[in-house]
Amino acid sequence: MFEYLTAGESHGPRLTAIIKSLPAGLKIELDQINEQLYRRQQGYGRGGRMKIESDKVIINSGLRHKKTLGSPLSMTVENKDWQNWLEIMAPDKERAEAVEALTNPRPGHADLPGALKYNQLDLRNILERASARETAARTAVGAVARQFLNELDINIYSHVVQVGNIKSKTWNQIKADSPERFSSEAAKEQYFAELDKTPLRCGDGQKTAEMIELIDSWKENGDSVGGVFEIVVSGVPVGIGSHVHWDLKLESRLAAQLMGLQAIKGVEIGAGFKGAAMPGSEVHDEIYYDKEKGFFRSSNQAGGIEGGMSNGEEIVIRLAMKPIPTLAKALETADLISKEKRTAAKERSDVCAVPAASIVGEAVTASVIAQSCSSKFGGDSMEEIRRNYESYLEYLSNF
Amino acid sequence: MFEYLTAGESHGPRLTAIIKSLPAGLKIELDQINEQLYRRQQGYGRGGRMKIESDKVIINSGLRHKKTLGSPLSMTVENKDWQNWLEIMAPDKERAEAVEALTNPRPGHADLPGALKYNQLDLRNILERASARETAARTAVGAVARQFLNELDINIYSHVVQVGNIKSKTWNQIKADSPERFSSEAAKEQYFAELDKTPLRCGDGQKTAEMIELIDSWKENGDSVGGVFEIVVSGVPVGIGSHVHWDLKLESRLAAQLMGLQAIKGVEIGAGFKGAAMPGSEVHDEIYYDKEKGFFRSSNQAGGIEGGMSNGEEIVIRLAMKPIPTLAKALETADLISKEKRTAAKERSDVCAVPAASIVGEAVTASVIAQSCSSKFGGDSMEEIRRNYESYLEYLSNF
Amino acid sequence: MFEYLTAGESHGPRLTAIIKSLPAGLKIELDQINEQLYRRQQGYGRGGRMKIESDKVIINSGLRHKKTLGSPLSMTVENKDWQNWLEIMAPDKERAEAVEALTNPRPGHADLPGALKYNQLDLRNILERASARETAARTAVGAVARQFLNELDINIYSHVVQVGNIKSKTWNQIKADSPERFSSEAAKEQYFAELDKTPLRCGDGQKTAEMIELIDSWKENGDSVGGVFEIVVSGVPVGIGSHVHWDLKLESRLAAQLMGLQAIKGVEIGAGFKGAAMPGSEVHDEIYYDKEKGFFRSSNQAGGIEGGMSNGEEIVIRLAMKPIPTLAKALETADLISKEKRTAAKERSDVCAVPAASIVGEAVTASVIAQSCSSKFGGDSMEEIRRNYESYLEYLSNF
Amino acid sequence: MFEYLTAGESHGPRLTAIIKSLPAGLKIELDQINEQLYRRQQGYGRGGRMKIESDKVIINSGLRHKKTLGSPLSMTVENKDWQNWLEIMAPDKERAEAVEALTNPRPGHADLPGALKYNQLDLRNILERASARETAARTAVGAVARQFLNELDINIYSHVVQVGNIKSKTWNQIKADSPERFSSEAAKEQYFAELDKTPLRCGDGQKTAEMIELIDSWKENGDSVGGVFEIVVSGVPVGIGSHVHWDLKLESRLAAQLMGLQAIKGVEIGAGFKGAAMPGSEVHDEIYYDKEKGFFRSSNQAGGIEGGMSNGEEIVIRLAMKPIPTLAKALETADLISKEKRTAAKERSDVCAVPAASIVGEAVTASVIAQSCSSKFGGDSMEEIRRNYESYLEYLSNF
Repeated sequence: MFEYLTAGESHGPRLTAIIKSLPAGLKIELDQINEQLYRRQQGYGRGGRMKIESDKVIINSGLRHKKTLGSPLSMTVENKDWQNWLEIMAPDKERAEAVEALTNPRPGHADLPGALKYNQLDLRNILERASARETAARTAVGAVARQFLNELDINIYSHVVQVGNIKSKTWNQIKADSPERFSSEAAKEQYFAELDKTPLRCGDGQKTAEMIELIDSWKENGDSVGGVFEIVVSGVPVGIGSHVHWDLKLESRLAAQLMGLQAIKGVEIGAGFKGAAMPGSEVHDEIYYDKEKGFFRSSNQAGGIEGGMSNGEEIVIRLAMKPIPTLAKALETADLISKEKRTAAKERSDVCAVPAASIVGEAVTASVIAQSCSSKFGGDSMEEIRRNYESYLEYLSNF
Repeated sequence: MFEYLTAGESHGPRLTAIIKSLPAGLKIELDQINEQLYRRQQGYGRGGRMKIESDKVIINSGLRHKKTLGSPLSMTVENKDWQNWLEIMAPDKERAEAVEALTNPRPGHADLPGALKYNQLDLRNILERASARETAARTAVGAVARQFLNELDINIYSHVVQVGNIKSKTWNQIKADSPERFSSEAAKEQYFAELDKTPLRCGDGQKTAEMIELIDSWKENGDSVGGVFEIVVSGVPVGIGSHVHWDLKLESRLAAQLMGLQAIKGVEIGAGFKGAAMPGSEVHDEIYYDKEKGFFRSSNQAGGIEGGMSNGEEIVIRLAMKPIPTLAKALETADLISKEKRTAAKERSDVCAVPAASIVGEAVTASVIAQSCSSKFGGDSMEEIRRNYESYLEYLSNF
Repeated sequence: MFEYLTAGESHGPRLTAIIKSLPAGLKIELDQINEQLYRRQQGYGRGGRMKIESDKVIINSGLRHKKTLGSPLSMTVENKDWQNWLEIMAPDKERAEAVEALTNPRPGHADLPGALKYNQLDLRNILERASARETAARTAVGAVARQFLNELDINIYSHVVQVGNIKSKTWNQIKADSPERFSSEAAKEQYFAELDKTPLRCGDGQKTAEMIELIDSWKENGDSVGGVFEIVVSGVPVGIGSHVHWDLKLESRLAAQLMGLQAIKGVEIGAGFKGAAMPGSEVHDEIYYDKEKGFFRSSNQAGGIEGGMSNGEEIVIRLAMKPIPTLAKALETADLISKEKRTAAKERSDVCAVPAASIVGEAVTASVIAQSCSSKFGGDSMEEIRRNYESYLEYLSNF
Repeated sequence: MFEYLTAGESHGPRLTAIIKSLPAGLKIELDQINEQLYRRQQGYGRGGRMKIESDKVIINSGLRHKKTLGSPLSMTVENKDWQNWLEIMAPDKERAEAVEALTNPRPGHADLPGALKYNQLDLRNILERASARETAARTAVGAVARQFLNELDINIYSHVVQVGNIKSKTWNQIKADSPERFSSEAAKEQYFAELDKTPLRCGDGQKTAEMIELIDSWKENGDSVGGVFEIVVSGVPVGIGSHVHWDLKLESRLAAQLMGLQAIKGVEIGAGFKGAAMPGSEVHDEIYYDKEKGFFRSSNQAGGIEGGMSNGEEIVIRLAMKPIPTLAKALETADLISKEKRTAAKERSDVCAVPAASIVGEAVTASVIAQSCSSKFGGDSMEEIRRNYESYLEYLSNF
């Protein structure tokens, strides 16, 4: 369940996604999918396209009267720009002579390796699919998974903790600053909800101002900007994932899907690289027991995952996004055909897409967690899943 | 091809691995598998067990007269220690009364989440499989993949670049220091081969001394030590992996299997997190063309992967390993049954296993690259694969 | 490659299919996809719906200027009838009061087990997806695979050999009758092409008349009609599939996808059940060698598959289709809610769909063969696949 | 869960199997695995090998004190004959000159297609893995699945219904003869248990005598004998499998694994091919409701599966096994190297293995049902699975 395929080129007619199977009887609100699509299109530093596209999802199957049927959920997101690309991207027409081939591969993109792998003489045949436009489909998929997780009281948040070389506090640091503040889920929800109103999804106003300044100045210089964001998953019970095989480990599944996002070049769970520099006694989260809470920790260096399994604490993942490889200050390249020196092709592009990537990261994380929950709890209807889920929670509380 | 399962508990009778299918006619030297098993058992900071076990592989199937049959290759590594665990780990006897349950879960291990997930009252039922002992099986599997890759002139290296908070130079830095030095594959091979004779698989003697000092002093303090290592894959042609789906992306597959290694908490490709802080114009590797070399780069911030595909440059991956969670200075924990305050159980353990992890990292990387090569080149016999491979290389050189 | 998902309810807005990946540079003619959709809608004994729907495919992605990009190919088939179901099947509206629940489960359908499994009180929530309408999507997918196979000179045919209890000759019998007649591929192509002009896709006019009579008389009696059809795949080289694991065996893959077709209750390869009654010396196809042809057989009881692999002869599969479970003469059932005795619900339906099923069978077979060819030959562009394919054929001819 | 790999050549050192994951806390009796291995080696018409091998399983991992750990269960079955094959099948020695290549491919075997596919000049390199010896590993795997299913009160039986052209009654016919006789599970268990004491696992003594006579006379003639067997699964609750995708359909999964058995050329569910000849009103099983039993049927033409799902009735599958392709009366063939006319190689072999195949069929069916149950009920420990399972049964009884 919650496995999916996406399809679609950046300037083709539309994006499609199929979620292979779902529990029946899950209430799905289109507004909530569209809200995620909207969130993905925000953020300071986006290019013109975000104004063109205001993505809305269309449901093709799997939903009836707002409830899932258990059958594959198919969704479409139309590319609003498509009317301008009818000739260039025509699926079912011979190539018109007027359609020019792109032959200047952009460093940092799929352009060149893709053209060589797939034997293509027009880079557009590669870059259209490699584009981050595809993440709109994954965002829609994740928005469905999120509605499922919400039914199990699992919440997924994110924030930006670095833009260029300006760093703001991580979630662990923020919580350490005011330990009481986030003891309730409502407080977390509110904190992260507020971020959606900020330009960069960063909770530190001062740092945000510096980040914006950096974006502006690098942009002026024809450059692009990367950064780092964190994803926080709250409410995952202990025991999702498994230690018995690498491909069942929760961190393996998260890393696979998150590293599979465009422009992501690094993944950390919990303390990550920083933890590698610390002595063991400072890294491992000691175990306590409380009648009410059961087993718990007072630190979370593990990022909520031990031995391939959720340990009941928040899951905290940090992702490094490289600067967007399409620059105004074009890089040097070589023509695909003539092999002569060129400057790289410029597609319309964003300068900084870290806030957007954090939303996509939430979506992808939602899919992974929903998949792993389905494996553990089984069930074909929401009633059955809830029954199995609650009986497991009860078992845990009696352990 | 090259997909596999491993099985085996740390103190059970033996480890098993099955590689599902292989090209027929691949020459496999057992010595080369055993050499990798040996490399995995070296390194300063290992515990007593490494002296007990000197792993040797037994071939159960799939090989005849030193050549693969195409059929599943099954391998066994006996646990030499097994004679001491006959009662405690007996598969097929009722539990003897004398066998005591472990009930003090170790922070940072699978112990507690595993016991809760699988409903176990003896932590040994979890920790035996979660143990890094399992990586001996993955090392054997990777040693087979490596012999296949060598036939395609693909080489896999690694070195340790950080132990505790002592950092030495990364591969990119080392190469930048003497750009001519590593222009031949033989020079790289020699450099990395020399590392096997050093105590920590780090090429910087001065730093190694500091690292050893750190290990000694932290050990004295009852603490354990993590670190960072790099894996370098040389000779991968452009076009392995794909941009079209997340699960076909080479970085996704690498991250999945590497993050699925015990104690790994962070994965970076190329510049990774550092790249997130840099302007785009400094991150993306400009593209050049040379008649002899074809398309090439003069930098490698991408770590050899763009848009989900190898780009013909070296693949460079950096892994963060947390300190081993079994400490002499025992951490606080709570008894699984009584819930009372305890100190964590101490299994015999290493203090620092970063060099060993780097060998396992090589092995796992070999499996991933071999899998992705198989998808691209097809073929059922080595002759067929070589034919397809060479015709692709020729196509590339004529592109 | 050629793996796919379909989505879509029978009376929902539309069907969707995504083929996960394809070789780049494959020429795809929409007309050829639509032709297969048309073929699927023909045949004596179909109900009214076939006149409503004249299926046409829309390409959403993966194709540019009639050539595949290697990226996922997404296709849509609109349900023409959708305008009449806007309220009843609305994905994103609360259920209108006027929408009545179906509560009389039809014997032989997914209705009852589906309702119980998915906890549904309206059988429509199950039957909409279980309907054979879904096979339109699989036909479109198969039509893409078929265009790929044609490039490798692999052809897929089918014919009906039984309707109700009227049997006509099997392909093996037809060939035995005039051994010379089908020595050329062109002759086979012509023979099967002619069948498309007949009412039941059966080559025996006399038997066809009897079959029509049977359909008419059973229909009059309020009954429905099943039958048997054969699929013949010509041009598959020796060595597709594998003997090393059950899930790599060609007959396993074929059986899985074909038994996964609506109403199919039996699958035979070659002599099948008849072969079980014969002595070994009459069942196994003796092996001959001819300089021109290489190794060959003069009989084909194996149906072209030995030990999980194609053996170079025609692949011959026979499928048993049960009578359509929606009958005019309604069967006895029990109300899902009240549990009272009822007669089964009647959706508009065909009386006999064996000819249609044979077309879907061709499509599904094409997908399986294309998948297995992709595994064997690798390659990302048609040029690369053809190169690998031809070098294998050359190797075979020199063996 | 219950996914597995097997490995092993017929005359290699040993067979291995790894079951990827299992619920923890499942009691496994080795005796019950060995009993299945024993059953597989019985039956009139077996060759000399069955006396050489008396298979016993060794557990390598995944089990402790007779209970599963949730971790991979690895099993070994030694090839007792191995000592006679040390040189010929040596995995890790260069080929001795004395080892002769087999070059006469046997019709009906994997020999020829395998040699061509994998580019082998010694047919032994193919036939060793293609041999039905491999099914001992699958029998062991299935014996584990069976012990799991027994915990859920699901039982798996089989009997032989045809040997050569001698047919005895099918399970449906036997039950129709004395409808009351098999109303209790105990009665079924006893009936099928008795079959293990008969020479051919057929319940009709008269027919058995005829079958034996046929085996004897065909054997004398140098020929081999095939047949048909049925598998009956009792106690599967409604709702296992799914209608939403072909690869989730229970009949698809069963057909895939059963058609993936050596020598199986046909699979039928329920009425199968016979149903294709009947009018719909006689094929579809009418639905009744009874307070005690819930929904039920008074016939079972569907073989317990409707629309891809179990419907609560017995699952009945019929398999056609071709005669063993190794004959005393050798068939004509052509030498692999010289291409000259030859008679086919004779490996030591059985004359009739239908009873053995029925045991393997039970095993494979057990694996499929256990996999599908795991998907539906989730759970990581037997307690959790039983909890989920029982709450589903209770839901069903209250539907």
